[in-house]
Amino acid sequence: MKKGLLVVISGPSGAGKGTVLKRLTKKHDGFAYSVSVTTRAPRPGEEDGKHYFFKTKAQFDEMVTRGEFLETAEVYGNFYGTPKAYVEKLTADGLNVILEIDTVGALNVKRAFPEAVLIFIMPPTRAELTRRLTQRQTETEEQLKIRLGSALSEIAKTGSYDYVVVNDTPEAAASKIHAIVVAEACRADKNRQITENF
Amino acid sequence: MKKGLLVVISGPSGAGKGTVLKRLTKKHDGFAYSVSVTTRAPRPGEEDGKHYFFKTKAQFDEMVTRGEFLETAEVYGNFYGTPKAYVEKLTADGLNVILEIDTVGALNVKRAFPEAVLIFIMPPTRAELTRRLTQRQTETEEQLKIRLGSALSEIAKTGSYDYVVVNDTPEAAASKIHAIVVAEACRADKNRQITENF
Repeated sequence: MKKGLLVVISGPSGAGKGTVLKRLTKKHDGFAYSVSVTTRAPRPGEEDGKHYFFKTKAQFDEMVTRGEFLETAEVYGNFYGTPKAYVEKLTADGLNVILEIDTVGALNVKRAFPEAVLIFIMPPTRAELTRRLTQRQTETEEQLKIRLGSALSEIAKTGSYDYVVVNDTPEAAASKIHAIVVAEACRADKNRQITENF
Repeated sequence: MKKGLLVVISGPSGAGKGTVLKRLTKKHDGFAYSVSVTTRAPRPGEEDGKHYFFKTKAQFDEMVTRGEFLETAEVYGNFYGTPKAYVEKLTADGLNVILEIDTVGALNVKRAFPEAVLIFIMPPTRAELTRRLTQRQTETEEQLKIRLGSALSEIAKTGSYDYVVVNDTPEAAASKIHAIVVAEACRADKNRQITENF
């Protein structure tokens, strides 16, 4: 069976990553989301092994020591990590694994797993990004400014990404991501066996 | 307008390149075939500027001297060349230009035009290649051996290609080539302007 890809998706909030990924996985088979390990407590309805792998801080630290993570992050005192073995199992099963993560995490993944494909989803314009963030109505003027500033700083860090997908519409963006996955599977360096065994 | 790609297609005879490209251009807009310059005489029905640009050997040699070709080849005493200016005009117009050419020519194009994308179309199996070549019935046993030997030697030269597309069915192969073109247009290094101007 042909190995799947690790597809790392980043993009500022307001880029529409969630909607794009939903369209992608609804329209195309063969995708699976990466499940993270976390030290935070499960919320109501969250299942171990589905939403997260829930671990104690001690268990998490042991995994770090054993080098079992592709990347880790700390958010508000909770720890999160992408388990290497889980990703490797899914890709070995031929699935394309989606990992939604920020630019710092994405570059760490690329270092640990160079065959990962890094895709950055961009909002179409700055005006549209502002509109989308404003529409949520959960943001104060100050929070909006922070979000916009953080979006611009994320966009400035796309230099090491493999692909940039502008989210004009979720359909178009999802079909571009699908095309990237199809194209990556055709890359000559991933098909040496086919030509050599012919 | 976004610049089109130069898509270089190679593959042994019997790989089904012609059928795959017909499906591709029938199903998707935005593709144009590169038109070669040749010193051979036009055949009945061939139009200058459509099938070939017909030139004298003196005109051809002048174009060579002026560095106007991406690559040239000599076949049975006739000369053929891919005119750089023509390819650049079409890609500047946003068209993806298809250039069907052998592995030697393809690698010369890549040297002259590094942004060219090299795709090698493979027959699915050696048995299927033999079957396709035999089906033509125009080949003697000896010719068939030569064709097979030449196919194997072409396949051995795919190391510098960007992509390998196995032609299981013309539909699937055409949609893979389309995916490659879509993905290449999303490559981060081709979208620096989008992220920088945001």
